[in-house]
Amino acid sequence: MNREDLLIGKEEKLLSLLKELTELKTILDNQFKEKLTRNLPFADVLFDRWEKAKFLNFGEGTSVYDSCHVFGNVVVGKNTWVGPFTILDGSGRLQIGDFCCISAGVHIYSHETVNWATSGGEAPYEYAPVQIGDRCYIGPHSIIASGVVLGDGCVVGANSFVNKSFPNNSRIAGSPAKEIR
Amino acid sequence: MNREDLLIGKEEKLLSLLKELTELKTILDNQFKEKLTRNLPFADVLFDRWEKAKFLNFGEGTSVYDSCHVFGNVVVGKNTWVGPFTILDGSGRLQIGDFCCISAGVHIYSHETVNWATSGGEAPYEYAPVQIGDRCYIGPHSIIASGVVLGDGCVVGANSFVNKSFPNNSRIAGSPAKEIR
Amino acid sequence: MNREDLLIGKEEKLLSLLKELTELKTILDNQFKEKLTRNLPFADVLFDRWEKAKFLNFGEGTSVYDSCHVFGNVVVGKNTWVGPFTILDGSGRLQIGDFCCISAGVHIYSHETVNWATSGGEAPYEYAPVQIGDRCYIGPHSIIASGVVLGDGCVVGANSFVNKSFPNNSRIAGSPAKEIR
Repeated sequence: MNREDLLIGKEEKLLSLLKELTELKTILDNQFKEKLTRNLPFADVLFDRWEKAKFLNFGEGTSVYDSCHVFGNVVVGKNTWVGPFTILDGSGRLQIGDFCCISAGVHIYSHETVNWATSGGEAPYEYAPVQIGDRCYIGPHSIIASGVVLGDGCVVGANSFVNKSFPNNSRIAGSPAKEIR
Repeated sequence: MNREDLLIGKEEKLLSLLKELTELKTILDNQFKEKLTRNLPFADVLFDRWEKAKFLNFGEGTSVYDSCHVFGNVVVGKNTWVGPFTILDGSGRLQIGDFCCISAGVHIYSHETVNWATSGGEAPYEYAPVQIGDRCYIGPHSIIASGVVLGDGCVVGANSFVNKSFPNNSRIAGSPAKEIR
Repeated sequence: MNREDLLIGKEEKLLSLLKELTELKTILDNQFKEKLTRNLPFADVLFDRWEKAKFLNFGEGTSVYDSCHVFGNVVVGKNTWVGPFTILDGSGRLQIGDFCCISAGVHIYSHETVNWATSGGEAPYEYAPVQIGDRCYIGPHSIIASGVVLGDGCVVGANSFVNKSFPNNSRIAGSPAKEIR
């Protein structure tokens, strides 16, 4: 569907804005293709992910995609990669170490709303802090529930649901996640 | 990568637009940090999630993040929270009750395309309506398939794939989802 | 939270920009509602998904949502549907055939970073190419790991984690994915 056609009969300035946004996108898309061999969502070509990390006071060398939602009190160390489609919920406090890989689609929650929903809004949200050590790999689409502590060097397989704590160097996977091998 | 540098030699008005978008983002990000202690994707700081729900004729008190995709005929009740990265597919009709929590990453489908793909586009899409009762909690990244009916007060664990119906107050999890406890 | 109120005392041109973006969104949202019975994220009402596919040199009839992240060397055939919240990682090369359905939330990786993270950034990223045949259906939220080859006509169930190769017409599901039926 041609977007410009959708603006026929509307104010001229809106058509101009749409055209300028499209030109801006085209230039940035071309530069990203040429310099970084990649194609990203519009907001990620507009804004830098190291700047987002800096705005959030995360550590040196850490980067965060535009589509990451950050809530409440979240502390992240150095050189950690936070992918797109992520949720870092620090409403009950969240701490993440250095050199972690928070893969695309990972959600880390420090609150939960099961009882809120089933009580029809009567029961309050519940909070518990989450801590992730240094050098942890959290695989794509994994969910970390409130109250979990993961030690240093943990590896969480893709698509896992982690609802209890694990010590340093654990390799876990599954829903709920269990030690593997 | 400095975005302004990427516009060197291009039209001046595009550099102005990029600068204004960046300033707008910075102001809104600062206000969200100060007033709501959160940092959201650009489109979510620009646009209100209660306004999106209102535009869709969803019930009073319901909110929907910008990254939610809504297709076809979708009816949602009051005070329901629809998170980011969600899909509400009403191409075969979808109804959701009051006080539900549709967690981040939930996809609810009322059509499917398995046969379309494997037949090389020969077979048509298939449709079947989906219904979710009141006070349901659908955990993050869960998928509800076409034809499913969930009663009131159901809890669906994170990362579940729900492909059959369950009565009121069911607690289910897994792929495919089964009653738990 | 009224966004315009958040700009009180700031430069007039930023308030104008916010108003124009909001008007543009409202017009496009109304047109999408009327003509396509759908409501999409802001970037997807601004930009066309067939144009994104064309920019990426994907085949005729293929479409790609704005929120798809494309990295490195990715080749996609004709009439393939690539949904929102997807990752097509061709950093180690990725090839996808015709008439595939790459459902929402699917991540296809041709690199991995487990050892990078657990070694504190010492170990390099690891790469291996991925190939997906024609007429494959990859269910929502499924992850395809580096090195995987899927033949033609494969069906991958929702929420699966595919870490080995499967021949033509395989029906697989689970984490890790196994043949079903």
